[in-house]
Order: sequence, then C-alpha cells, then structure tokens
Amino acid sequence: MNGRQRMLASCRCEDVDRPPVWLMRQAGRYLPEYREIKKDRDFWTLVRTPELAAEVTLQPIRRFGMDAAIIFCDILIVPDAMGVGVRYGEGGPVLEPLVTGMQDVERLRVVDALGDWSYLARALGLVRAQLDDRALVGFAGAPFTLASYMVEGKVSAELVKIKSLGYNQPEVLEALLERLSTAVADLLCMQVEAGADVVQLFDTWAGRLAPGDYERWALPAVQAVAERVHALGVPLILYVNGAAGLLEPMARSGCDVLSVDARVRLSEARQRVGGRVALQGNLDPIRLFGPLDGVRESVRALVAETGGRGHVVNLGHGVLPPTPVEAVEAFVRSVQEGGA
Amino acid sequence: MNGRQRMLASCRCEDVDRPPVWLMRQAGRYLPEYREIKKDRDFWTLVRTPELAAEVTLQPIRRFGMDAAIIFCDILIVPDAMGVGVRYGEGGPVLEPLVTGMQDVERLRVVDALGDWSYLARALGLVRAQLDDRALVGFAGAPFTLASYMVEGKVSAELVKIKSLGYNQPEVLEALLERLSTAVADLLCMQVEAGADVVQLFDTWAGRLAPGDYERWALPAVQAVAERVHALGVPLILYVNGAAGLLEPMARSGCDVLSVDARVRLSEARQRVGGRVALQGNLDPIRLFGPLDGVRESVRALVAETGGRGHVVNLGHGVLPPTPVEAVEAFVRSVQEGGA
Repeated sequence: MNGRQRMLASCRCEDVDRPPVWLMRQAGRYLPEYREIKKDRDFWTLVRTPELAAEVTLQPIRRFGMDAAIIFCDILIVPDAMGVGVRYGEGGPVLEPLVTGMQDVERLRVVDALGDWSYLARALGLVRAQLDDRALVGFAGAPFTLASYMVEGKVSAELVKIKSLGYNQPEVLEALLERLSTAVADLLCMQVEAGADVVQLFDTWAGRLAPGDYERWALPAVQAVAERVHALGVPLILYVNGAAGLLEPMARSGCDVLSVDARVRLSEARQRVGGRVALQGNLDPIRLFGPLDGVRESVRALVAETGGRGHVVNLGHGVLPPTPVEAVEAFVRSVQEGGA
Repeated sequence: MNGRQRMLASCRCEDVDRPPVWLMRQAGRYLPEYREIKKDRDFWTLVRTPELAAEVTLQPIRRFGMDAAIIFCDILIVPDAMGVGVRYGEGGPVLEPLVTGMQDVERLRVVDALGDWSYLARALGLVRAQLDDRALVGFAGAPFTLASYMVEGKVSAELVKIKSLGYNQPEVLEALLERLSTAVADLLCMQVEAGADVVQLFDTWAGRLAPGDYERWALPAVQAVAERVHALGVPLILYVNGAAGLLEPMARSGCDVLSVDARVRLSEARQRVGGRVALQGNLDPIRLFGPLDGVRESVRALVAETGGRGHVVNLGHGVLPPTPVEAVEAFVRSVQEGGA
C-alpha cells in the first residue's frame, strides 16, 4: 500500500499493512529548513504565497516520508475572510472587532471560498502535483473554536466571554456558529476540490466545555460541516484537545476519525466510541523531548492499544518548536518499520 | 443532619438528608467583604495572620451557610517551607531557585509542620471554635502539582520542563515527589490535629498528564499521602483539573472523594469509579455568569446525575473573581432547598 491508500483505508477502519503516520504541525519551526524559509518573512506571507506554502508543506515529507502532508495554512483565515482583523501579538493572535451581540454577527462578511482563499487552492494544487502517492490533508478551524477567537479576541484560558454569551444570549452564539459552519464547510469543500484527500477540523478549544455545552454548541456546528464534506466522499477528522470527557458526543458528530490528545488511553477511546469510528493520535508531544528509545517504546505501546486498525498514528497535539528533529524521525520510523 | 455530619457522611458514601455543598475558592475576591479586608494588605499577610485567615475563611459561611468552610491558605506554603522562594508576579507565582537536578532535591529543607506552619494551626483552631456544626476542610497541593511549580518555576501550559525531567532523569523526579509526599502528608496531618474534619489534595496540574505518566508520577505520591491521612481516620478528597481520562487510576489512589472538573459527566464518573468512591463537583464556574434560573436548573441536573448520594456539590474549578455574588447564593440555595 502507498501512504495515500494507507491513510484513506485507516480513516475508514479498513485493513492496512501498517497504520499511517503524520504529525500535527509537522511543517513548522522545529525544522531547520522551515526556519531558513521563515527567517526573513512573516507568517502570513508564507501562508498566502502558494509556492512558499507548498514548499514548507513538503519539507517534512522529504525528510521523514510521513504518509500524509498537511497543507501549510492557519485556522484564522476564516474570521479574517469574514471581516474580523487578525494580527499576531506577543501572546498569540489578537482579533478585532470582537463579536459581542447580534449586530456584530449580522455584519460578518459572507465568504467566497474560491475568491477569498485562491492562494490556498493554488498551494494545494502545487503540493498535490509533487506529493506522489501520499495523502494530502486539508483543514479548517471548527466553528466553536473560531467563534471562541472571535468572541474572546485572543487565546483565553477560561473562555469566560464565549460561555457567558452562550448562557445569556444563546441566539447570538447560535447565529455565529451557523455562519461559521457555512464558511468552514465552504472552505473544506473548496480544499477537497483543489486536491485534499482528507480534511481535518481543529476544535481545539471545545475540550474546555462541559459535555452538555459541547452538545449544545460545538457538536451541531460540526455535524453541519460533516454533512457537507461527506457529500464529497472524503473522510473527515475531528480534533479536540481535552477530548476525554467528550468521546461519545464526538462519535455522533458524523466525523470518520476522532483525533484525541494524550490524556485519554486509545484502548479506552476505542471501547467508548466503538469500532466504526477511527482514532488519530495520541503521543504526548513532550515525549519527543525524552530519550529516543522511550519514543520508540511509546509508539509500539500506542499501536498495540488499537492493534493498528482504524488508527492514524499522530501526536496528541502539535509538534512544539524546540522538539529535536531526531525524535520526530524516531517517531515516524518506528511506525514505518513496525508493521501492522 | 448538620453540615458537618452531611459532609462526612457524603465523603463516605453514607446516607444524607441532602448532599452537602461548598465551593472551591469560596473565600475570595468575588466577595465584597473579602476585598475590603484585602485592600490594604498583601495575600501572604492574610495567609500568615491567623485572625485574618480565620475571618476570610468564615465570610462565605456567614453569608451563604455552606456545609463546609475551607481554610484560607495557599498550596505554595510547601515549596516555601522547603526553601524555594515564592513571589507573586503579574502572571502568577514565580518560584526560585528551580529544581533541575538531584543536587537541588538534596538541598531542599525538611519541613517541621508545627513550626513552619504554626500560623495555619492557629487559624484552623480559630475557625473551628466559630464554625459550630459545619465541616472544616484543610488542604494541600498534591506532590506532582507542587513539583511542577518547583521545576517549571511558574504556571506553565505545557509542562515541558517537568515532563522532560521525568523522561530523562526519572530518579530526580521520583526523589522530588518522595520528599514532597512526606512534606504534604506532614502538613495535612498537622491540619487534622488542628481541627480539620476533611482534607483535600489539589492535584490541579496532574490532569495534563497522559494516563501512563499519571500512574508513574502523580498517583504513587498521592497514595503515599493517602496512607498517612487515613491512619487519622479523616476523609481525603482528591482534586484534578482535567480528570476525565484519569478517573480509574484516581479511584485507586486511596482517596475517599474524587473532585472532578466540569468536563466529565458525574453519571459517567460514577459508572467508571463505582459506588464506593464519592464524587465532588462539578458545575462549570462560568455557569455562574449566566442567568440565575440556569444556575438553579444546572444544580438540579447535577444532583440528579448522582441521585445525591456520595456527592459533595461543588464547582468543577475555583470561583472566579468577577463572579456575581447572587449566582453563588443561587448555587448554594438550590442545594440547600433541593432536598435529597
């Protein structure tokens, strides 16, 4: 099997010769060749220049030969296209104007996927042409996570503003999530048309919700996106950071693969979600700061938990910038050499 | 039943007329009478002056009549007594010198519970004398959480340093956890002697560990503390923020009550830990920013999940400073008036 076949089969819980492997944020600062390209350019220049985005997407594949490449892009291109400015401050992105009431939701621009994100379509095409037999993963932020950025204005530990909005003005949050669902589905469908074999929703912040709130807010928005993506026949992966309490509702999202962080055992996750939903993950990214033998041992243990079936081997969260390159190599090689 | 009886019975999964209720961080900045006392004093002055610590401990009880009072103190009194300086910067506490190797562990001071924390013993005595028939809760940071502060030096989202230490120099982390277990057990036992009816371990950061790492590092340290506390015949509560993936090992900790955050359903927790371990929690503290009817409705739903048995009603995390006082009142009243 080649990487693309392996990735597609695992997403559908079909037989594979060995599980596929890639890493969230594998195109990034831990790679010297990425830092070289990035050094005299800002982040948005990389994202918006198809040749550069394609190049950094392909860098980890050339070095390690993962089964899948994830297109280099950013989840905040959606609020940006809807008319909410995004700039990068010291503590991460800052968005404005904030969404605080219905008038702000009504003022949001309706996106035009091909027009607004033409650079992304071109980057996907360039990668597709050079990727040979590996899978190309497109992605978007999930509606709740994007709504959190748009209501909080920045990374927030507590999500006080968006939860308060949901408790006090549920109709505003619902309207915002509905608009975001449409925009996100447009974005993912455009990526599929442009060459993505698989698409992933990053609902990073939904893991800070109580299960009842997850079911009221985050889940229906993901279900709406899943319906649109499925009409195109492409597998959809759902990532949540802090998924341990949400696995059952996540399994009802309509997504094919649940990508979970390190804080839940895959064997437990498998038991709770059943055999028809695949799992992705879930080594603690900080494991890669330990001895290489420990990395290899952890990968073996991880694959043993799922028996390698319906399992896309990955980290539980993105690669951290100071991660040693050799540890990423040991991680990928262990899967490649491990067999089914 | 009075509050003390109710609290003790629920911690032991025995019959109660209604579940007991209190709130983590109930003595704090959301209360105008706390802000009044605090305005011309620093935090450590409150902690170290028994009359002031007793006064702020009792403030929420006078206003709302919770079933339990938690002594006003701080988890960082342990590293402080061990010779690691603690000062409060803008982003929270800063500790130094950091623990980076075995020589730092060996240099740590052995605590003398009664001598180092005599102000705490006196504060507990003062509260006990005025608390009538309510339960007095003592507490300490759990060894792993304290070790995280001592190795990271501050609040850390990723815990890169302590996890790296555990992967690369496991003997250093184990030695640190062992010293902390002894100090924490000394502290809790001293609090029991001074009048605490129940004690709680805050292992706030342990919820950022993969289950295997939790079992290797955080759990054995808690088990060692639990053994010492149990010899005194007092119930022990274990709090972890992000407990959803760790409930089974937490249930093996020897603690009587598992205090869980909002991101796991109590009905699911009950099923996973069985009927012999009580549960504490777990309303999302941000719920208190919503309508009061919603607060009451959530409390009813929460108690319905456990049937009110073996359940100490609480939040999933501490009360946030901007929380409206009326919402705390609605939370407490709903339990008091709800019946069994």
